[in-house]
Amino acid sequence: MDYTTISPRELRALIRAGEITGQTSGMCAGYAQANLVILPKDLAFDFLLYTMRNPRPCPVLEVTDPGQRLFRTMADGADVATDLPRYRVYENGVLVDEPTDVSHLWRDDLVSFLIGCSFSFEAELMEAGVPVRNIEEHRNVPMYDTNIPCAPAGVFSGNMVVSMRPIPYDLVVRAVNVTAAMPRVHGAPIHIGDPAQIGIRDISKPDYGEAVTINPGEVPVFWPCGVTPQNAVMRVKPPFVITHAPGHMFVTDVKNVELKY
Amino acid sequence: MDYTTISPRELRALIRAGEITGQTSGMCAGYAQANLVILPKDLAFDFLLYTMRNPRPCPVLEVTDPGQRLFRTMADGADVATDLPRYRVYENGVLVDEPTDVSHLWRDDLVSFLIGCSFSFEAELMEAGVPVRNIEEHRNVPMYDTNIPCAPAGVFSGNMVVSMRPIPYDLVVRAVNVTAAMPRVHGAPIHIGDPAQIGIRDISKPDYGEAVTINPGEVPVFWPCGVTPQNAVMRVKPPFVITHAPGHMFVTDVKNVELKY
Repeated sequence: MDYTTISPRELRALIRAGEITGQTSGMCAGYAQANLVILPKDLAFDFLLYTMRNPRPCPVLEVTDPGQRLFRTMADGADVATDLPRYRVYENGVLVDEPTDVSHLWRDDLVSFLIGCSFSFEAELMEAGVPVRNIEEHRNVPMYDTNIPCAPAGVFSGNMVVSMRPIPYDLVVRAVNVTAAMPRVHGAPIHIGDPAQIGIRDISKPDYGEAVTINPGEVPVFWPCGVTPQNAVMRVKPPFVITHAPGHMFVTDVKNVELKY
Repeated sequence: MDYTTISPRELRALIRAGEITGQTSGMCAGYAQANLVILPKDLAFDFLLYTMRNPRPCPVLEVTDPGQRLFRTMADGADVATDLPRYRVYENGVLVDEPTDVSHLWRDDLVSFLIGCSFSFEAELMEAGVPVRNIEEHRNVPMYDTNIPCAPAGVFSGNMVVSMRPIPYDLVVRAVNVTAAMPRVHGAPIHIGDPAQIGIRDISKPDYGEAVTINPGEVPVFWPCGVTPQNAVMRVKPPFVITHAPGHMFVTDVKNVELKY
């Protein structure tokens, strides 16, 4: 079966049935994929406030009521406990399991956050003729810790993490315009050019992901990154948190192009 | 002293000192005024979710950490418990007091919400040459219950309340464009024309505020209204809630024009 062309609903049914447990990259082409964070309600207020105060690195697409397993707006009727191919379960900051289903861990106080992902704007960049180096080189996008502070909220704090894509100098404005039109998936770049300005010492040594080639005539362009809220959560070492496993995303019923509106 | 030209900081100092206890309409011309809702933390998560799911009627400008009395982004260092001229205190849905200071009622679990107000876009409409009838006639804007459902969140639910301004037919598009550019203060209209389409039976009998003249050649234009979240809160009859007294708003340090960005 060609997973790039089936509908998100069909894909999630296969995932729910345990027939797909791998990474979702490239599946259901054109549809938005999202990061997942599940927290107990007593931390969820602070986290919701954190995402609201830092919408650039933490663009929330949907939040469930406490205990509610079904999404409504991003994928009507999708079950957050079964419809991702793999999860990570942390207790007090320690990774304790990577199951393909978290139904057995479900609690009435759990709140689920879907957070937009740069996959969505990479498709739009390529559509607009802007090269995306990490895709060309089949690597994870390089990501960096910065000196850009996020606004704290309750127990959550930390500096922004950014992703970097080298852009030919004559396409930088186009890359800004294309991504600025998609604020629900990180929006416009947060910085263009000299990495030292935002506290990055060595562009060839990303803190997460993999380095990519920067050619002469290309400018490093930095976007707010969804690792920011993940780090903010992990820094707190909450008693209990569930996330997607890296690359094993939630596939929504919403097309990337719809995130422009 | 001319309160239309003093700075918001000066105005709030006079309010804090008890020298101003009346309505804030027209004070600190050009600066945004905001609605206030203060709720205990156990309801604040549901309410934050409600505002997030219904950003058109509930455009949140700032939310404090629990127990925190000082604002940061809308008015740095302003004290929510002293810097409004008059408050309303409700217990189990019953109005129990209208004090000019709520310091004595402060609790460590209280969360304050500042919500954008249509005052901000009315100034921009007039600047753009669009008449604002309720201002011309020195009346409160007419507001109506509708059949437009809001997305529920936890204990909060209800239909949208709208405000209405009659606009000459050749200025309707301009009115849409001017307000669409200000999503943090309700944004574009939610409906243009026939009131029956959104469940309003008699345009001459508003559910809140006062009726205004609709001249021949004018179209009733409806915007999402901040009474929506107030109603959602009151329907729940929370054990304890504080709001601004009607017309006694929080005056921010942010100019109306800055809410375009």
